[in-house]
Amino acid sequence: MPVPSSDLVDRVLTGETAAIARLLSRAERGDAEVYPALGAIFRHAGRAHVVGITGVSGSGKSSLVTRLARAGRDGGRKVAVVAVDPSSPFSGGSILGDRIRMNELAADPGIFIRSMATHGSLGGLARSTLDAVDILDSAGFDLVMIETVGVGQDEIDIVQAAHSVVVVSAPGLGDDIQAIKAGILEIADIHVVNKSDRSDAHKTIADLKAMITMGAQAAGATGRKVPVLASSAISGEGIDELVAAIDSHLGALQRTGELAARRRRIAEQRLLKSAEQILRASFDRRRDGRTTELVERMMRGEIDPHTAARKLLKLIDQEKQG
Amino acid sequence: MPVPSSDLVDRVLTGETAAIARLLSRAERGDAEVYPALGAIFRHAGRAHVVGITGVSGSGKSSLVTRLARAGRDGGRKVAVVAVDPSSPFSGGSILGDRIRMNELAADPGIFIRSMATHGSLGGLARSTLDAVDILDSAGFDLVMIETVGVGQDEIDIVQAAHSVVVVSAPGLGDDIQAIKAGILEIADIHVVNKSDRSDAHKTIADLKAMITMGAQAAGATGRKVPVLASSAISGEGIDELVAAIDSHLGALQRTGELAARRRRIAEQRLLKSAEQILRASFDRRRDGRTTELVERMMRGEIDPHTAARKLLKLIDQEKQG
Repeated sequence: MPVPSSDLVDRVLTGETAAIARLLSRAERGDAEVYPALGAIFRHAGRAHVVGITGVSGSGKSSLVTRLARAGRDGGRKVAVVAVDPSSPFSGGSILGDRIRMNELAADPGIFIRSMATHGSLGGLARSTLDAVDILDSAGFDLVMIETVGVGQDEIDIVQAAHSVVVVSAPGLGDDIQAIKAGILEIADIHVVNKSDRSDAHKTIADLKAMITMGAQAAGATGRKVPVLASSAISGEGIDELVAAIDSHLGALQRTGELAARRRRIAEQRLLKSAEQILRASFDRRRDGRTTELVERMMRGEIDPHTAARKLLKLIDQEKQG
Repeated sequence: MPVPSSDLVDRVLTGETAAIARLLSRAERGDAEVYPALGAIFRHAGRAHVVGITGVSGSGKSSLVTRLARAGRDGGRKVAVVAVDPSSPFSGGSILGDRIRMNELAADPGIFIRSMATHGSLGGLARSTLDAVDILDSAGFDLVMIETVGVGQDEIDIVQAAHSVVVVSAPGLGDDIQAIKAGILEIADIHVVNKSDRSDAHKTIADLKAMITMGAQAAGATGRKVPVLASSAISGEGIDELVAAIDSHLGALQRTGELAARRRRIAEQRLLKSAEQILRASFDRRRDGRTTELVERMMRGEIDPHTAARKLLKLIDQEKQG
């Protein structure tokens, strides 16, 4: 028999691991019946420091996140990680990564790690990832890290739902990777060059600092100085400094009042993503009915996409009342 | 004085270059007043063969597209290219690329090339790119190519709005790039390994064929055989074969009836993208009004994102009536 949602919510709020895992699975599936539970959870969220950690594959980002989780835990905090890992259809990367990291850390109930699968749509993933953050926040985790591969607009949207954004680089990843990363340069609150034990790490640090300076000049000086740190997830070097920089960033957000502005931006994004999700779900439910008629009229050139979209929004609103 | 839309539409339909450029700019800005013109255009679209060409930076994709455009033109067709180039804030890549290619081809009115800027949101870009395809289609171009960098879900959505999808690879781009490409393997109707003049090209072709075989086994055999071609945009080798493969793909779509299924999928995607665009535009217009109230109630934990999103959709529907 399924556990009633209200009971499940109570157990999540006390931090019970099994209840958290179950609600996360329901949220990930996105069944309509999970919404009342998420609504109840939402009222209790808002205490955690949410940190987005992004970087391309090969940067050692996952090992770094594991180190950060352990350091946060050693400092007495409850730590959760939501890993968004759009792995290729052939690698099965997220499942494997999960197992390795769970083995390392699972003995401690003050640490919770969850990989989100990417079932086709990254848009849906953004919604379920942010729901997962709320669930972990409401369950009493002090630090919630969102780990993503920093490629594509949806991923950038996801990581921008964090209070503090850490961008991870590493030496030896090649020029093409650097080009991709340029798109996420401007969202970094903290840069960290991982694999600092490598001999070519100092060049990557210098290149990154040059890119940041160029970017700041292009955008006009904003006054904000983004720190560039070095770390080695293998030796543990630089991890304490990174933890300190993350804490210090939150302190600065609170002091300057920017935290409120970020919370507003995050709330706006969540509102839009949720509305888009409702739109897609409603569209999928109506594939045999009136949306099919709209699509077929479009195919015959009788109605343009914009007019059809207005009619679709009308149908969705009627559905809510019906 | 601005040109009235109805006059502009008539001139676009006769294929007048200046009118096409102007309507493309209006569509790209996404002003509400462009929608009647796009609605009128839409009724005349649907004749062109729309070909999506995607591949990571460094694959020589843009040179290949230029070659294809010239080959199509030599075969007596009118050819248009819409290049979606999410360049880094520092490279200014799309503007430069435009200039180089325009110089090469602009003397001929039977060729039209347009780079779409990425003003922040790739979601909005998807809408304006597909509007651009309609405009060029209705203006009488026989072949409309959409050129993208194959990274991220929005880009995949864009390129899937084509009837035929060509994925461009090249030797020497490294393993990380291959991993990224794995995500777009399954959307290819035709693979082409560019830079076939390089000595290591045969290895890339063999690797690609192996990946495709693995992917087909993982997905279960579908019966469809995706050709892997070789080309050199520099020497021109393999271009005629690629043109023939693209034409042959369209022929197969028509013969098997799959073209109708693709047209349906494209119409569905456009409907959803347009609805999302209306949502975002409406949200932006109301930032000082009732959406702000929704966002603030979310920030106070009084209302969860899903409930707030339902209220937002309600507001949008009321706006349409008011």
